[in-house]
Amino acid sequence: MIRVGIIGATGYAGGELVRLLLGHKEAEIKWYGSRSYVDKKYSEVYQNMFQMVDDRCLDDNMEEMAGQVDVIFTATPQGLCASLVNENILNKVKLIDLSADFRIKDADVYEKWYGIRHKAPQYIEEAVYGLCEVNREAVKRARLVANPGCYPTCSFLSVYPMVKEGLIDPNTIIIDAKSGVSGAGRGAKVDNLFCEVNENIKAYGVAGHRHTPEIEEQLGYAAGQPVVISFTPHLVPMQRGILVTAYASLKKEAAYEEVKAVYDKYYDKERFIRVLDKDVCPQTKWVEGSNFVDVNFKIDPRTKRIIMMGAMDNLVKGAAGQAVQNMNLMFGLDEAEGLQMAPMFP
Amino acid sequence: MIRVGIIGATGYAGGELVRLLLGHKEAEIKWYGSRSYVDKKYSEVYQNMFQMVDDRCLDDNMEEMAGQVDVIFTATPQGLCASLVNENILNKVKLIDLSADFRIKDADVYEKWYGIRHKAPQYIEEAVYGLCEVNREAVKRARLVANPGCYPTCSFLSVYPMVKEGLIDPNTIIIDAKSGVSGAGRGAKVDNLFCEVNENIKAYGVAGHRHTPEIEEQLGYAAGQPVVISFTPHLVPMQRGILVTAYASLKKEAAYEEVKAVYDKYYDKERFIRVLDKDVCPQTKWVEGSNFVDVNFKIDPRTKRIIMMGAMDNLVKGAAGQAVQNMNLMFGLDEAEGLQMAPMFP
Amino acid sequence: MIRVGIIGATGYAGGELVRLLLGHKEAEIKWYGSRSYVDKKYSEVYQNMFQMVDDRCLDDNMEEMAGQVDVIFTATPQGLCASLVNENILNKVKLIDLSADFRIKDADVYEKWYGIRHKAPQYIEEAVYGLCEVNREAVKRARLVANPGCYPTCSFLSVYPMVKEGLIDPNTIIIDAKSGVSGAGRGAKVDNLFCEVNENIKAYGVAGHRHTPEIEEQLGYAAGQPVVISFTPHLVPMQRGILVTAYASLKKEAAYEEVKAVYDKYYDKERFIRVLDKDVCPQTKWVEGSNFVDVNFKIDPRTKRIIMMGAMDNLVKGAAGQAVQNMNLMFGLDEAEGLQMAPMFP
Amino acid sequence: MIRVGIIGATGYAGGELVRLLLGHKEAEIKWYGSRSYVDKKYSEVYQNMFQMVDDRCLDDNMEEMAGQVDVIFTATPQGLCASLVNENILNKVKLIDLSADFRIKDADVYEKWYGIRHKAPQYIEEAVYGLCEVNREAVKRARLVANPGCYPTCSFLSVYPMVKEGLIDPNTIIIDAKSGVSGAGRGAKVDNLFCEVNENIKAYGVAGHRHTPEIEEQLGYAAGQPVVISFTPHLVPMQRGILVTAYASLKKEAAYEEVKAVYDKYYDKERFIRVLDKDVCPQTKWVEGSNFVDVNFKIDPRTKRIIMMGAMDNLVKGAAGQAVQNMNLMFGLDEAEGLQMAPMFP
Repeated sequence: MIRVGIIGATGYAGGELVRLLLGHKEAEIKWYGSRSYVDKKYSEVYQNMFQMVDDRCLDDNMEEMAGQVDVIFTATPQGLCASLVNENILNKVKLIDLSADFRIKDADVYEKWYGIRHKAPQYIEEAVYGLCEVNREAVKRARLVANPGCYPTCSFLSVYPMVKEGLIDPNTIIIDAKSGVSGAGRGAKVDNLFCEVNENIKAYGVAGHRHTPEIEEQLGYAAGQPVVISFTPHLVPMQRGILVTAYASLKKEAAYEEVKAVYDKYYDKERFIRVLDKDVCPQTKWVEGSNFVDVNFKIDPRTKRIIMMGAMDNLVKGAAGQAVQNMNLMFGLDEAEGLQMAPMFP
Repeated sequence: MIRVGIIGATGYAGGELVRLLLGHKEAEIKWYGSRSYVDKKYSEVYQNMFQMVDDRCLDDNMEEMAGQVDVIFTATPQGLCASLVNENILNKVKLIDLSADFRIKDADVYEKWYGIRHKAPQYIEEAVYGLCEVNREAVKRARLVANPGCYPTCSFLSVYPMVKEGLIDPNTIIIDAKSGVSGAGRGAKVDNLFCEVNENIKAYGVAGHRHTPEIEEQLGYAAGQPVVISFTPHLVPMQRGILVTAYASLKKEAAYEEVKAVYDKYYDKERFIRVLDKDVCPQTKWVEGSNFVDVNFKIDPRTKRIIMMGAMDNLVKGAAGQAVQNMNLMFGLDEAEGLQMAPMFP
Repeated sequence: MIRVGIIGATGYAGGELVRLLLGHKEAEIKWYGSRSYVDKKYSEVYQNMFQMVDDRCLDDNMEEMAGQVDVIFTATPQGLCASLVNENILNKVKLIDLSADFRIKDADVYEKWYGIRHKAPQYIEEAVYGLCEVNREAVKRARLVANPGCYPTCSFLSVYPMVKEGLIDPNTIIIDAKSGVSGAGRGAKVDNLFCEVNENIKAYGVAGHRHTPEIEEQLGYAAGQPVVISFTPHLVPMQRGILVTAYASLKKEAAYEEVKAVYDKYYDKERFIRVLDKDVCPQTKWVEGSNFVDVNFKIDPRTKRIIMMGAMDNLVKGAAGQAVQNMNLMFGLDEAEGLQMAPMFP
Repeated sequence: MIRVGIIGATGYAGGELVRLLLGHKEAEIKWYGSRSYVDKKYSEVYQNMFQMVDDRCLDDNMEEMAGQVDVIFTATPQGLCASLVNENILNKVKLIDLSADFRIKDADVYEKWYGIRHKAPQYIEEAVYGLCEVNREAVKRARLVANPGCYPTCSFLSVYPMVKEGLIDPNTIIIDAKSGVSGAGRGAKVDNLFCEVNENIKAYGVAGHRHTPEIEEQLGYAAGQPVVISFTPHLVPMQRGILVTAYASLKKEAAYEEVKAVYDKYYDKERFIRVLDKDVCPQTKWVEGSNFVDVNFKIDPRTKRIIMMGAMDNLVKGAAGQAVQNMNLMFGLDEAEGLQMAPMFP
């Protein structure tokens, strides 16, 4: 039984980790870390866990936690994980960081986009970017996994085969992303009140969102060259789900079957990526609560562009689910353990 | 492995049966019956099941189905199950009817409230009302189970201990219920369009809703006398969930602890009923996707009334989940098999 | 042109006052008071008012404001209006208080339910309870109007004719109310985040909500005797709207036509109360954005009860609209000036 | 007083026409045309109009209607207006068609994208494309106005100044649009049920939506050359609102002030287009219920692209409001008559 510690267990991603791990046969949560709710019963913060979780919240002492668990998830704001991690901890436990601290290989880029000093640059190189479908083998051997961001996961997986196979010009990529509100976290902000979000859609972080360099870096590896993209996130009045609509210019004419074969080449054996049937557009509702990413594409001969689409649950494949998938790989378990639930509809 | 057939597999309750049974270790769906979609792939109707279900929809031939499965769920409009069932079928399979056909023991009452002739009154007596928490032993022995209605399940369980123990005057019971829209089914009706339901709440079926006699009958058994209640359902702009707020006059003064003990007496050992802590009001969101019913109460000394509350997911404990719970009992399985998922929040 | 000052102009009720007064031919807002946003452009707080309102927010100096305007609306939390009002102010301007400070005639009751000391008990007697349909003549002569609460307005108007005519036993009244989230204000609270409210319904303040004594007092005047009721508010995932479902025992058998005549007697000439046609249930969506209250009833011969229903927009007739209606009366204008917009659907 | 006839008065756009015209000082609806509800009281179909509209629905006999009114609005599916219009009618009344029948100047293009034969090609040339901000003078003289589509209105106005001034390469334009559900009409379709739309976002009509040629044609006039664009609409779980996020490559570097001056040049005097302040992104909620289009832009030096955004209410500026604006122009009234209401927030 893998003993688990969570730092940030009372945020939405932390709560989702708890939900998923309760259904995991090989893992057991030993430490519900939550600075804001120390000593409070976890099920009083998340009443859905009433009679399912009896533990009280503990602090976020990573040092002490490392002595009691096998793996630590940090589901906290940027900067915290980097400020806590050290060699002693990494020698004792595996660490899966759901924040952005170890996602970007260039510390300068991190500091520029996030506006904070990186407290543990010495671990950036070692950290494995935990996109299982791309870095599976490296994840298996990692001590420290940087769990990908929600937008980057959905964005990258939607366009990856086309970039990797060189079928599109990567610098023409425009990613228009739409997210539910849980991505913004559980903090009490006027902007996320029901009355502000309901009956509303808006873009935000236009031409400046922090997930941009993360997407660009990963696309760069796939393309074998630096990539610069447009990325625009939007806030949608729903609690879960990310939809990505990506546009790019085709390098040459391509038939549906040809492109389909490319997507299948990369995703056919993947258990959490579903390439939909022809002309079926991904919808966030069809993946809600599950670890699936649904992807598809449409070739537009008029504009010589391809439109690539992806949908996933931002709290599952975009955060907690992918983190559990990484944990499974790191501990040699079935990659899908605890993640096989069907999407909930409606 | 229990072989399962579903008639009405493409309605919302049918879809939920599929979701739950995919996670059930001892059951396997062999027949996806759907008159409207015969020959269509099930996963084209419910795209969430893409790559999870490969079967195509079949018709609703109960006779033939009975030869191929061990249990049949009918998740269809009133009247269909009664029109299909016969001795030959009941000798071969167990039958769990999610419609109202066998819930009410008095065929005249059924015909008056539902406005249709009962086609198989000879089985009414035999049918067991499948409220597991009350009729557990009878369910275990049943061939034919009448799966309770969504409103009756939540209404009854919210007030049952008080009625059974004679602490309230049952004829003062007023049940004000609120439901999400999935309870209205997947039929294409203007009234259930997003633009009609969103930003709206309304009562319907006032003083005449069909679930009234079902609730009254069950309360009558608990009270040991005929009971007449007020029952008003409301439509709430959410997809899942039922909340019941019930009012009744206390027969005598009662302290919190006394009433709490009464609720605990009936529900303490129940795995799907959670009596919440003092002053915590049930919320539908805390049970979403799960088979839980959360109940609680508040004594009002000013009015000498007690307010009893219950929340559940109408598609799970109010339909498919309770049906699976009944199946588990009928086949001697762990009552909670396939039903242990935590509620999803948010 | 009536010069208007608003204290609390950046709350939801304050924002609605601005919306309504911009469409009012005889009024002009001279003072946008908002302690939290002093010096900020109003249209930066409420971007919907961009290019419609050029003013900046000012503080809440009622004394100074009284020298510059003809009427002051206080759309602020309980206690503030009472702490600011004095004879000097009341000699200069008319005052319409949207808080609860002057709604309850018994200061002890106010202090008990609201948990604060009343700072200006000397004006309680003088203050007129601004339910125009009941106190129209008194409002016309008032210096100080206590604008009714949202729940009390809808609750009272739904049952008033039946109580006034003595057709129901007032102590059997049970009011089950459902409100959209804007009633909770624009404060940044976790409980009102989109992800907490969406897909959720809950009761709150059970057997203890502050609007209870306000409803009881007004019902007491109508009944000519003290009245004690059950009142339970619920939070519904919508931004605007209140629906009231009220239950009471009929003193004697009553036919539809008889009760309809009673409702018509009180409401037939009212411009903002619509008694719906037989069997049509009020819906919040049908009054959204307007000053209407839609009411109707259903007699239940089985239980000898009557179910009375009312729907309104909590920010209009439940707050800002009613306040403007009061202003119109106080200044001798057409009662409906600025309030004649049709409800918006969908 | 202008006498108005509406064909299709019971669709959502028709209902919005009624709402707006009830607040219009110079217009009076004389004919509520609705084939589906002939003889039914209009306020029974749209209960929000109870006691505001007493008329019953009539058929869609345009010939007869033309004898009784001064202007006819057709808020009906494609093809109907073209099948009814004739010289006799156009000699008697002004005609504002909210369908696509007369928007596209090339009948072949119309027939190809809409899949129907055009029944009155002889009027295509004469019809004026009713985008008031661009074709104001022509609208004033028109007998027949083609009211622009919802997506085209918002899309075109968001990018128009940049195209007209030649600052962007028009063939690099990518329009990612998001709409509320009312745009899909009031027909009873499973896809538009609350449970299908809620908690969901999806693209549809990818690389093939009918509004594409309409946008391209208008952009072509502005650019002085044929334009081919990518246009992708999405369905968002809200009732009203369209948000457009448009991308294009800048022909040369441009500073914020320069681009702002270009937008101001075209929109500064427009009463219904608001160019927002720097870095403020349009949100649909800020224009809800009003005739405003809010636009803004963001220059991205990294990609040498500009992101242009627009938000409006699809039923007002995207349909009924724009139609009333056209009517005002055609009859020499103040262009803003009946359209000056502030947006409703929340």
